[in-house]
Amino acid sequence: MRALLARVGRTIRQDCRIETGDRVAVAVSGGADSVALAWLLGELAARDRGPVVAGLIHLNHQLRGAESDADEAFVRDVAARLDVPAAAAGVDVGARARDAHVSIEVAAREARYEFFETAASSLGATLVATGHTIDDQAETVLLRLLRGAGTRGLSGIRARRDRIIRPLIHCRRADLRTFLRSRGERWREDATNEDVSILRNRIRHELMPVLSGIAPGGVRALARLAALAQDDEAALMSAATEFGSSLVLSNGAGDGRVEVDAAMLSLMPAALARRLIRACAADIAPGRQLAARHLEAVRSLAASDKLVGHLDLPGVVVAKRDGRLVLTPVASAPAC
Amino acid sequence: MRALLARVGRTIRQDCRIETGDRVAVAVSGGADSVALAWLLGELAARDRGPVVAGLIHLNHQLRGAESDADEAFVRDVAARLDVPAAAAGVDVGARARDAHVSIEVAAREARYEFFETAASSLGATLVATGHTIDDQAETVLLRLLRGAGTRGLSGIRARRDRIIRPLIHCRRADLRTFLRSRGERWREDATNEDVSILRNRIRHELMPVLSGIAPGGVRALARLAALAQDDEAALMSAATEFGSSLVLSNGAGDGRVEVDAAMLSLMPAALARRLIRACAADIAPGRQLAARHLEAVRSLAASDKLVGHLDLPGVVVAKRDGRLVLTPVASAPAC
Repeated sequence: MRALLARVGRTIRQDCRIETGDRVAVAVSGGADSVALAWLLGELAARDRGPVVAGLIHLNHQLRGAESDADEAFVRDVAARLDVPAAAAGVDVGARARDAHVSIEVAAREARYEFFETAASSLGATLVATGHTIDDQAETVLLRLLRGAGTRGLSGIRARRDRIIRPLIHCRRADLRTFLRSRGERWREDATNEDVSILRNRIRHELMPVLSGIAPGGVRALARLAALAQDDEAALMSAATEFGSSLVLSNGAGDGRVEVDAAMLSLMPAALARRLIRACAADIAPGRQLAARHLEAVRSLAASDKLVGHLDLPGVVVAKRDGRLVLTPVASAPAC
Repeated sequence: MRALLARVGRTIRQDCRIETGDRVAVAVSGGADSVALAWLLGELAARDRGPVVAGLIHLNHQLRGAESDADEAFVRDVAARLDVPAAAAGVDVGARARDAHVSIEVAAREARYEFFETAASSLGATLVATGHTIDDQAETVLLRLLRGAGTRGLSGIRARRDRIIRPLIHCRRADLRTFLRSRGERWREDATNEDVSILRNRIRHELMPVLSGIAPGGVRALARLAALAQDDEAALMSAATEFGSSLVLSNGAGDGRVEVDAAMLSLMPAALARRLIRACAADIAPGRQLAARHLEAVRSLAASDKLVGHLDLPGVVVAKRDGRLVLTPVASAPAC
């Protein structure tokens, strides 16, 4: 228990970059990880070794009827016992997923992070803490791996991203359960965590046990990879941006158009060219993602002998002319 | 069969960078992959779509008695039927492993690559082809992952490294067996491939089936990651070397001593600093490997307020003085 508290305290200081005066809203689903997070942050705050806990925040996903309502009541009860306010809201995740044509998982995540912003503000919090553990990190790395990710995807979950912090990112899930049991604290089990039609759950329940059986240090190895990948990705992005400054010929005055020297792009190291293309496309079509095959198509177009060419990519049209690649948003693409 | 031949032909041209006049020695253990490689390269050569096959080479590991001798006889028979010479040699891998205090696997690999060099020369070959498949690539990525590798380790098996080429690196093991069966060709099973005390075999027989069950495209995803990691690692090494040129103050005139500006090293992006330290150490102590924790220790020493400090690492001593890190080989390290 003392080792666990010390570990969380270190993570908060070193990796989450907490500053004096920070107030943290703790996102609690009712599951063991986030409930342990609430108690641990409460304990650290009481000992003046962590930020003030501004309150608990809970999004009711309304996916499991009475179960979802019981989760919310449970979180309100933990907040009352911690003597901090609770902010909860409901969202119809199922409807959101149908409307936006995305999976339940994606809709739930988007709804969650939107809610975090508003709920944190309502509590006067500067940060939101989530209960992601090193086990989540390992599972995320494997998930990305199986989806064909490169260094960027393998970076996994960061200890801090904008105003979101993950104080438990170095803690094992099993240790958090032991901590709760030792204090006689309860938590809620979410039956959807057992649904093996969800790839993440199959990784958790089928792949991880085999992996840990073969290599007991597997979870820590995967987490270490994520940390190294974060640093590698940062260095690659910075090198790509530096290269790009001499390569991107015009970054249109408000017309959202980017021109790149094709010959120079094809001479760039492949790793940097891919990142530069991705960054240019993200400037033009925020929120759209180019896949690996799209990046290779742009590189091939840049390298080819053809003087003119044309690619329709998600949110972006790439046209080759006069030795330049011209990237424009799909809506305003000129007729070719 | 035609698809398989075409794939191998493409790999040879595009990824193995074969040149006119190249003559290839095919390393054949007797297992399905390398036997298929011999027949496929023979077929391509006969159609003038691949390099001349200079002969088959086989290292008798002498680990399995009569079985090992039967492997050698089998390979000689395949060579005779392909109408090319065979070069075989024996090595006592068990003794080598004991003498060098390394595992059987490591000793066998070292012996193999030494033998490849001499055997290729004896056949007048310019290249050696090995039977590594995309399945080996995926297993290697997982093996490195479980050992805590970063981008460099995930690069896996390259289609070409120096004079070694891997024409089957995009082929599935199952397709090679189908190819052999369709031609009525036999191969030898190596019982040590089933030994689950070897981590690689547990990955092959226990982890991969679960992984492929969850994500049917898992093998290709892992291989794609290896390809991306190769490019990422190349770009990172080149950026590290560029940074290093202004940072490495002296690269001693033959005394094998390297001095690095400590303050500048600590300001470098972490990903580049790690690679620069590794490269400097490799210059001084070839063949010795620094682990991740050694690299972090050197970075900490560089960043610390302490004016003097000292680290004993494998093959290298790092001393801090006058704002510099001085790296020297262990044998010639000055007393501190």
